[in-house]
This record gives sequence, C-alpha cells and structure tokens, in this order.
Amino acid sequence: MSDRIANPALRAKVMSPDEAAALIQPGDNVGMSGFTGAGYPKAVPLALADRIHAFRTHGHDFRIGVWTGASTAPELDGALAEADGIELRLPYQSDPVSRSKINSGLMEYIDVHLSHVAQMAWEGFLGKLDVALVEVAGITAEGHLIPSSSIGNNKTWIDLADKVILEVNSWQPEQLQGMHDVYYGTALPPNRKPVMILEAGDRIGVPHFICPPEKIVGIVETHAPDRNTAFKAIDEDSRAIAEHFIDFLDHEVRAGRMPAGLLPLQSGVGNIANAVLAGLGESGRTGLTAYTEVLQDGMLDLLESGTIRLASATAFSLSPAGVERFLAGIEFFRERIILRPQEISNHPEVIRRLGVVASNGMIEADIYGNVNSTHIMGSRIQNGIGGSGDFARNAFISTFVTPSTAKDGALSCIVPMVSHVDHTEHDVDVIITEQGLADLRGLAPRRRAERVIANCAHPDYRPMLEDYTERAGKGAWGLQTPHLLGEALSWHRRFMDTGSMRAH
Amino acid sequence: MSDRIANPALRAKVMSPDEAAALIQPGDNVGMSGFTGAGYPKAVPLALADRIHAFRTHGHDFRIGVWTGASTAPELDGALAEADGIELRLPYQSDPVSRSKINSGLMEYIDVHLSHVAQMAWEGFLGKLDVALVEVAGITAEGHLIPSSSIGNNKTWIDLADKVILEVNSWQPEQLQGMHDVYYGTALPPNRKPVMILEAGDRIGVPHFICPPEKIVGIVETHAPDRNTAFKAIDEDSRAIAEHFIDFLDHEVRAGRMPAGLLPLQSGVGNIANAVLAGLGESGRTGLTAYTEVLQDGMLDLLESGTIRLASATAFSLSPAGVERFLAGIEFFRERIILRPQEISNHPEVIRRLGVVASNGMIEADIYGNVNSTHIMGSRIQNGIGGSGDFARNAFISTFVTPSTAKDGALSCIVPMVSHVDHTEHDVDVIITEQGLADLRGLAPRRRAERVIANCAHPDYRPMLEDYTERAGKGAWGLQTPHLLGEALSWHRRFMDTGSMRAH
Ligand SMILES: CC(C)(COP(=O)(O)OP(=O)(O)OC[C@H]1O[C@@H](n2cnc3c(N)ncnc32)[C@H](O)[C@@H]1OP(=O)(O)O)[C@@H](O)C(=O)NCCC(=O)NCCS
Ligand SMILES: CC(C)(COP(=O)(O)OP(=O)(O)OC[C@H]1O[C@@H](n2cnc3c(N)ncnc32)[C@H](O)[C@@H]1OP(=O)(O)O)[C@@H](O)C(=O)NCCC(=O)NCCS
Repeated sequence: MSDRIANPALRAKVMSPDEAAALIQPGDNVGMSGFTGAGYPKAVPLALADRIHAFRTHGHDFRIGVWTGASTAPELDGALAEADGIELRLPYQSDPVSRSKINSGLMEYIDVHLSHVAQMAWEGFLGKLDVALVEVAGITAEGHLIPSSSIGNNKTWIDLADKVILEVNSWQPEQLQGMHDVYYGTALPPNRKPVMILEAGDRIGVPHFICPPEKIVGIVETHAPDRNTAFKAIDEDSRAIAEHFIDFLDHEVRAGRMPAGLLPLQSGVGNIANAVLAGLGESGRTGLTAYTEVLQDGMLDLLESGTIRLASATAFSLSPAGVERFLAGIEFFRERIILRPQEISNHPEVIRRLGVVASNGMIEADIYGNVNSTHIMGSRIQNGIGGSGDFARNAFISTFVTPSTAKDGALSCIVPMVSHVDHTEHDVDVIITEQGLADLRGLAPRRRAERVIANCAHPDYRPMLEDYTERAGKGAWGLQTPHLLGEALSWHRRFMDTGSMRAH
Repeated sequence: MSDRIANPALRAKVMSPDEAAALIQPGDNVGMSGFTGAGYPKAVPLALADRIHAFRTHGHDFRIGVWTGASTAPELDGALAEADGIELRLPYQSDPVSRSKINSGLMEYIDVHLSHVAQMAWEGFLGKLDVALVEVAGITAEGHLIPSSSIGNNKTWIDLADKVILEVNSWQPEQLQGMHDVYYGTALPPNRKPVMILEAGDRIGVPHFICPPEKIVGIVETHAPDRNTAFKAIDEDSRAIAEHFIDFLDHEVRAGRMPAGLLPLQSGVGNIANAVLAGLGESGRTGLTAYTEVLQDGMLDLLESGTIRLASATAFSLSPAGVERFLAGIEFFRERIILRPQEISNHPEVIRRLGVVASNGMIEADIYGNVNSTHIMGSRIQNGIGGSGDFARNAFISTFVTPSTAKDGALSCIVPMVSHVDHTEHDVDVIITEQGLADLRGLAPRRRAERVIANCAHPDYRPMLEDYTERAGKGAWGLQTPHLLGEALSWHRRFMDTGSMRAH
C-alpha cells in the first residue's frame, strides 16, 4: 500500500478496482473526475466496462449516466462507450468512440456550458447522483482529500453523491498539495454570495476536498499517468494566427484600450491555442496573468520566462513532455499556478469582473460573425461547447480562431450562414484566421460581413462570399442581416453531396 | 420657469429646444436617455429633426449616431429616422420608422446585449460620445440631477460626453426623487469590484446623477408625457401561457427546486409578459420580488396586492392608465420600487447571484430549443435582443413564451430550424405556448425535439414537425442534432413564396 493514504480509517477501505466497480449499479448516475485527460479515474472505469460486458453476456443491460468535468481519456470515455455502458453523457467529451456512438444515436449527450454544470446538478432535475468516482493525489491524516491534476466538478460530485469511490493515484506528484483552491461558498439561490476573486491569483477556498468518511465506500490505489496527447509542431497557419492575435493586443494597448500589463488571458484547448501562447512568449511582455480553463504546455514556457506571473485554471492539459517539465520544475510552478473548481474558473461573475481576453477555437464562423463550435454540418457533434460560452459572453474581448479552411481546402471555415450557432454575433468581437484578423466591435452586420470576408476568408472562397453578400443585399427579406434562405446553407449541402464546398 | 431647477447657476443655462439642438453638430455621437417610451428627451430631438431638414434643404447632409438605453418613442426615434438623421443606432429600438429604414439598408443598427452597452462605450471603440441629451425630473440646489422615469445608460452618457444637454420635464412626478439607485462603482478592468447586490432590494448607489456643472451646455424645460402604449386586453392565448407558467412555478416549489417565496422574477416586454404578471396576481402568493428590466402595468397590481413586495428595474413602461394609477399611489410605490442603471439591472453577476427566473418573448423557437428573438425570416430585424440574453444566460430558470402561431396561423412559431439564433439551446430551459409547456432541462437534443413538438407546437403544424424529425433522424449527417440542411429553412422560404408555412 502506498503512503498516500495517511488516514488509518480510510486505509481500511482500500479494495481492488473490480470490488469498487461492483459498487456501481445499472442505472446509477456517476459523477467522475477528469478534465481533458487529466485527473480522471484510471482503474475503476475499466473494471466497470468489464462488469458491463459480463452483464451483457448474461443477457442483462447495464448503462449508467456519466457526468464529468469535461473530456477524459480512452480508459474512461472510450472504454465505457465501447461497452455501450453510457446511457447519458454530460457535459463535454472529445473521445472518438463516444463521438461516434453519439452521432449514431446510440448514446445521449447533453452539451452544457461548463459553468452551469454544478448548478444543474444541485438544482436536481438531472436526477440523483448515486456515486462519485474521483481520482485524488492523496488523503491526509485528517482525512482531507488532496486533489489531482484537475478539479472540474469533483467538489460537487463528492458533496452530492450518496457514495464516494476514490482512486488514489501515486503517479500524481505529491507536490500538487497546496496548489488547489477549492471554494466551499457556492449555494443555490436565494443563498448565493459574491465570489470574492478580484485578481486572477486570489485564493478564496481550501486546498482540499472535504468528505464525510462514512460516505467513502471504497478506495482504489493506482499508479498511472494522465493521458494527454502531444501537441503538433507549430505550423505556418498557427504561427500566423498567433501573430495576428498579438498584433491586436499591441494595437489595443497603443490605443489605450488595454493596460500594458494586458488583462487576464483565457486560451482555449488545442494546437492553435498552444501556438498563440508560444507567440506571446516572444512578445517581450512580462508579468501577465491567465484566468483560464486548462493549462497547456505553452503556459509552462510563459511561466518560466516570466511572461506570465500567475495562471489560474481548473486543469492541466500537458503533453507527456510537458508533464516531465512540470515535474522537474514543480517547486517553481506550484507558486504560480492555482487550480479551482470549474464553477469558479468559468464563473461569469469572475470572468466579467477580471475583464478576461478570451481566445477560443471554432469549427466555422459566418459572415456576420456567428460561430459554430460544436456541430459539423449542423448535426454531427464534434466535442461540445465546453467553457467557450462562459468566456465569450463575459470576456472583455472575445476572439475566435481557426484556419480559414479545413480538409485541405474542401471546407471554408467562413460560410454564408453557420450550420449551427453556439456563439451569436453579440458574443464574437474578433475573428482570426491565418489570412488576417477582423475586429468586429462596433460594426453593424453588413459591415461585419465586409470585414470578415476581406480579412479572414481564404482567397479561394472570397469571391463566392462576396457574390453571396451582394445578392443577399438585393434579395433578402430585410437588410439588417441579409440572407438568402434558399442558399444560406447550400455550401454545407454541396460539401455533403460532392465532398467540397467549392462551386465547380 | 418651473421650480424644478433649484440650482441658480444652472437656471441660467435654460434655453429653447432650437438653441439646444443647435449645439448638436453633424457627425456627433449623441447619448440619449430613454427606455421603452419612458424618460426620453421630448423636445430637443424634434428640434434637431427640424435642424436636419433645414440642413438638407440647403444641400448639406446631417446625420448623427444615436445611443440610448433601449427603445424610445416617435418624438425621438421616429422623428430622427424620418429625417434620415441617424447614421448609426444602438443598442435597441422598436420604432416602425426606424425599423423600416434599417431593413431598407438606410440606417445602420448595432443590436447589443443591454448589459454590454456601458462597457462598450467606455472601452472606446464606438468612438467619442460628443453630447449627452438626458431627460431629468429636476435639479437639486446642489446641482444633482434627479433621474426621470427611466435610467438606462444615462449615468454613462453624462460621464462620458463632452457636453451635456438636459431636458427638465415637469410632467414627471417630483416624488420620483429617492426611487433611483445610481451606482458609481463600475470601472473598466482591471479595476472592477464586486457589485454588492445580494437581494433585489439592496441599494448600492446614490439617488441622483452627478455632473460637473461646466459640462452642462444647455437646459430645456418641458412638460410632456411619456409615450407608452396601452396594453391589449388579455386574450385567451396569453391567459393560457400565463397559466402554464404559473403551474410550472408551483411544480418547481412542490419538487423542492424553488423556495415557496420563489426567486426574483424577470418579465419581458409586451402583452404576454403583462398577462403573466396578471396571472401571478391570482396565484395567491405574497412577498415575492422582481429583478427585471421594465415595470409594466401588471407590476403595479402585484405591488398593490402584496404579491410582490419589491421590484427592481431600470425603467417604467406604463400605459397612460398605468401612469394615472402610479401617480395616485406614488407614496406607496416609491417604497417598493428601485430604478437602477441598466448595466446593473441587467448585470450577469447580479442576475446569476440572485437566481432570477426569466420570462421573455420570442419570434420563433426551433425543435431543439434555439430561440430567435430578433430577425424575421432571418434577415429583417424586428426590435433587437435587448436584455433577453443577459437574463436568459444567467437566470436560474430561463423561459421563453410565444403563441404557437402568428399571422392567423400562416406562421408556425415552432420551426425545424430558427432562421436566426439569439439564444442557443444552452440558454433555453423552458418553452411555453398556449398549447403547453416544454421543460427542456436535462434533455439531449432529440428528446428536446420530442417534447417541444408534443407540448408547444400548434396541432396544424405538429405532423409536419414530426415528419421532419423522423426523416432527419434517418438522413442527417449526425444524430446529435439531426437536421436536413436542404429543408431546415424551407418553412420560411415557403412563407416568403406563398404567404404561409403550411404545406398545401
Ligand atoms: C472547435 C474545435 C473542435 C476546434 O478544435 P481544433 O483542435 O482546432 O479542431 P481541428 O482543426 O482538429 O478540427 C476538428 C475536426 O473538425 C473538422 N473541421 C474543422 N473545421 C471544419 C469546418 N469548417 N467544417 C466542417 N468540419 C470542420 C476538422 O476537419 C476535424 O475533423 P476530423 O476529426 O475528421 O479531422 C475545438 O476548439 C472545440 O472543441 N471547441 C469547443 C470547446 C471550447 O472552445 N473549449 C475551450 C475551452 S474554454
Ligand atoms: C420577440 C418580440 C418581438 C415579441 O414581442 P411581441 O410583442 O410578443 O410580438 P408580436 O406578437 O407583436 O410580433 C411582432 C411581429 O413579429 C411577427 N411574428 C411573430 N411571430 C413570428 C414568427 N414566428 N415568424 C415571423 N414573424 C413573426 C408578428 O406577426 C408581428 O409582426 P407585425 O408587426 O407585422 O404584426 C419581443 O419580445 C422582443 O422584441 N424581444 C427581444 C427583446 C427582449 O426580449 N426584451 C425583454 C426584456 S429583457
């Protein structure tokens, strides 16, 4: 037994993954830890998948509701989806097997603003939370739970569930202890209080989860790495996008619209976000802060170089190489990183107060600046809205980034009308592609269209967009936001029919 | 001269509307008071329209930017739009002349979340605010400005403008003094502080606007009524919608998801909202609160009956009869009503903290629960998003209401895909029509569709929606949110082609 379980009474609850999985019953709702491949339970979900297979073999169905922080990893989402063990999944996923089950209609998926999840669970309409299955880095002598590499909704799951199963993962560094700030002041209305974070680095909670020991029904010991993937080498498009973004920040500072120390930065998930961070490191700025959701490799560089002095998030999202670097410098990083529950990292109140500058990826934007973050061809879910809505709506400046085309140019990421809307024109200030940046603030819709087409669209698609806009400006039912409804989604239809949005 | 101007130095600045209008130059941005026909300047805009006409006659163009709180009245929006004097209008309007100019492409219109307007103006990208033109109820001996029947963005306009023109309207009751709570604690990031409203009735400001006297370049005296229209008698549809809404609240209380004293209510503009208020009065509840944008006649009933003990808003929106009643009972009402700047009445931080139950009108919803509040046939603006996004996103429960059909049944207000999205499925918890109520919380998109169609669609359109859903469930590119993109907007096209959405 590892020495990570310092509380004697709880040591007595250690069991095997199979024994723990046996505590989960068909129809249960299970609140699991995990946020972008960090801090998810690594042993019990696999054992549960086996249990589900065994049930099936005996002719019994076995499905559960899986609630998490955000996406997890193959050992959780992949294994349970493969076993057809998930009845309903929320609030975010990015697993290929889950995605395919969802898009085949075999799995229900509720895509939720990440800041809303805890409130929804407390409100009660999602049903009872039967079990919390949470990875921790250790248990103190007093029985406090030391959070792992992500916090997500763990505080809420532990509070709400009837039964708590813990995985104590000794692979997680012991020095995580003290980096977390778990706020115990949330409540349902009418009992809500202000969330008193006035700077990205403010601490308002305690560094651990509190759980009555009698709720803990099983503890499983693991020694298993988080499962985040490596980032791609920064390509030319990402570099161009990063440069446009940084030029824009410089421009805002020169115009007196942002302090020289900028405002707290939020940066989305993925390779482009990572490239933007890399670009910031070359900008020569120092002493910035980040108030964001996940910490990717690029953030470690920025902390090391002093570009960023403090980063607040709810989870790490490091590549294997990033993990090595984090471990090597952990004494340095633990002074500069705070992990919080996602209801706080994504809280509208705090994002708005701090005046976050947000940068998120997208699937497509339309000429008026509506953004689709989730649904390919309006129907097929990619991942989910995640925290992008929390940040886009409340940010001081909300930017969205994408290459101007996808699938080797067969898809234009700037279209006449998006096939699904996650962020309306009201919440999209700036659009950036490798072609350029469109600052849409203070522009009426037709002016937005001119700028998006001129600055962001790929030259191959620009004439088609101009042609649409010109004809819509004559034939639309009204000229505030001119559309030709018979044609607005025709680019998507052409792609589905011919494999390309190009007109031949 | 009326005795409403108690400050001698300011009395010296009284002038005629024409003299005041002459202080406004072509190309100026003018921040005007006014919110739903309450508290807008009544004399200078008309004089300005004359001035614009005169300029035109002499071959000179004269256009200004008009920034307000929200919609105003014919003497402001109507007159200036008629004169083609508005280059750019923001953030909300509902004037028929303006609407027609905008939809003809003759006037630029930026449709903004009402909580964002002040921040946008301060941020600076809208350009300089040259003049503030604000109606007040009086000026104190110290030179403080007593707000009128709406606050809107007046505090911001007065702070930001180079020059301030006041209209002192002696028609406004003197007893308005003391009802307002003007918060002077807002700032741009990184200097923002928590907005310390913990209950709908909390006061955090002062009862007046503060303006350096040297900025006041002119004062015009008026005695002119606000120009709100009468409400329609409550029809059967509105009554049915109100009943569904109130049943739902009762149900939530019984389910333990809401306290018996409910949560602060927000209620949108218009006849249906007024009917919902009337319905509440018959529910027997007492001691409720409202944290809302406008106070319509129905709210006076609720205050008088004790159903509501306190209402916070940014503006009155009373019918002429409602004004009479308000004046008759003003000593009673002034203890129970607080008017605030719209950046506070609509502040996401406060709405979220209080856990507001929101109810807003809409143009159409789609089967998945996306809502169009603004654009008819996806192109033609009706009014604007107003505060609906501030409330829908941050409410504890967000409801949207509409009759199931419009234009004598030629339009279904439940469609396969909305032609414009203002509120995504993430922000729409409950849809209510006279047919029934669809509680969409905790449902994945295909389940949402079943419920919206079964509970809310008009029977004439239900089979068409079921048919679409069934075929989309087979032919869509993915089954998370199944759509047939060639057909999704065909109902709107049919209406534009044939005058009806019905398939013949
Ligand atoms: C939108 C999002 C999927 C983009 O992420 P990304 O890593 O840059 O995406 P990729 O370029 O790899 O594209 C993902 C897929 O969408 C496809 N795609 C990209 N643009 C497309 C478009 N315009 N039309 C159709 N498909 C498109 C890609 O081809 C790829 O498909 P594949 O998996 O078959 O190769 C991602 O940012 C996301 O999930 N966002 C929502 C959540 C969020 O913003 N969280 C931020 C934290 S607050
Ligand atoms: C959406 C909104 C326009 C509905 O208001 P309302 O008074 O109930 O609207 P009406 O029923 O009078 O409809 C307005 C027009 O839209 C038309 N309309 C209604 N439903 C329609 C539909 N589904 N498709 C097309 N047109 C429709 C009506 O026929 C009417 O047209 P007309 O002026 O030619 O007669 C109004 O609530 C609004 O502006 N909302 C946005 C702002 C907001 O929510 N503010 C709330 C305060 S926070």
